Amino acid sequence: MAGYVSDAVIRRLPGYYRHLRELEAAGVTQISSQELGKRMQLTPSQIRQDINCFGGFGRQGYGYKVSELKEHIGEILGLDRQHKVIILGAGSIGSAVARYPTFSREGFETIAMFDVAADKVGSQVNEIPVLPMGGLEGFLTANHVDIAVLALPAAYAQDALNRLYQGGVRAVWNFAPTDLNHPEDMIVVNVHLSDSLQILSYKIAHRDND
Amino acid sequence: MAGYVSDAVIRRLPGYYRHLRELEAAGVTQISSQELGKRMQLTPSQIRQDINCFGGFGRQGYGYKVSELKEHIGEILGLDRQHKVIILGAGSIGSAVARYPTFSREGFETIAMFDVAADKVGSQVNEIPVLPMGGLEGFLTANHVDIAVLALPAAYAQDALNRLYQGGVRAVWNFAPTDLNHPEDMIVVNVHLSDSLQILSYKIAHRDND
Repeated sequence: MAGYVSDAVIRRLPGYYRHLRELEAAGVTQISSQELGKRMQLTPSQIRQDINCFGGFGRQGYGYKVSELKEHIGEILGLDRQHKVIILGAGSIGSAVARYPTFSREGFETIAMFDVAADKVGSQVNEIPVLPMGGLEGFLTANHVDIAVLALPAAYAQDALNRLYQGGVRAVWNFAPTDLNHPEDMIVVNVHLSDSLQILSYKIAHRDND
Repeated sequence: MAGYVSDAVIRRLPGYYRHLRELEAAGVTQISSQELGKRMQLTPSQIRQDINCFGGFGRQGYGYKVSELKEHIGEILGLDRQHKVIILGAGSIGSAVARYPTFSREGFETIAMFDVAADKVGSQVNEIPVLPMGGLEGFLTANHVDIAVLALPAAYAQDALNRLYQGGVRAVWNFAPTDLNHPEDMIVVNVHLSDSLQILSYKIAHRDND
């Protein structure tokens, strides 16, 4: 395992993993820091520095072995583990997550969805059963859950998070467009779609002003 | 209009907008940098510095007027404009974007979706018509489009981006899990869902190791 890894390096790890997976699929077995840097829009020295940081991989001058480096970065990302996932909210965002093909390939197994709507409870999304929100506590008592996806309206998200914490869940992937309060021993990663679209809008507005 | 705004401040702008909108909805009219900082997990001096950067708003000691500041930040984000949007891909991600309620409220109007699947073309998602991908060029000749959402499989995304550029589209919101090459005068903002989930996985793995 690597030593101290900075936040900036951590944020770049999924990009490395994605590019190495694409290279592997294209049949590339070996890549230099120059070529990888060009693909990722990083300098070769930045690439070498990052990869040293992961644990001193490859031999400078010969380049990196694509499959080996991909696997190593996958392990650092925890993708060699299985994660049991539940999704709160069976609306369009929750259903899109349930149907996203790469998640199951990367070891994220969705075992149940929860909703309050009578027309959704009892149905299935991508063969995953939609259970009533009222059954959440019982489900968490009977099943170990590594990650809960919050795909609920903002107004219901904090209450849902509190219930998940009470039930022993310690990691949340939050799609609700709000910032949630959570205990220190709970990990929350947000996907704020509106924020991303607003950044695009900002860039359009300021390009036009230039 | 504000002067030079750093990337870090730009990335915080949607967060300000979101918190101010929540405060406004809760009936709060005035807020101090202390209180706003507490909500946003920033120091009061960071808040004052950011807001000065937007154009010297509010009076220190009296706090900021919530509605006025929200509107001002909305203008900086370009949310006072209307944006015509098309979505390429009418699968679960494309449909989730088409149904996302806040986007239309914030001036993003989806006027058409495009897909190759015979069972999707001719249908509607949230009253938005799904047109055949082959009709993209004709549509772009007849209609002004500010933003194209890419909700296609990674393998088709680069070709779609090239066609959009040829058709005059200069801003892309990309959900395809790949990094795209684009001309300098085209803005591309990525939502890499896998990256976000992998960051969560990393944090779980390294919490357990601690």
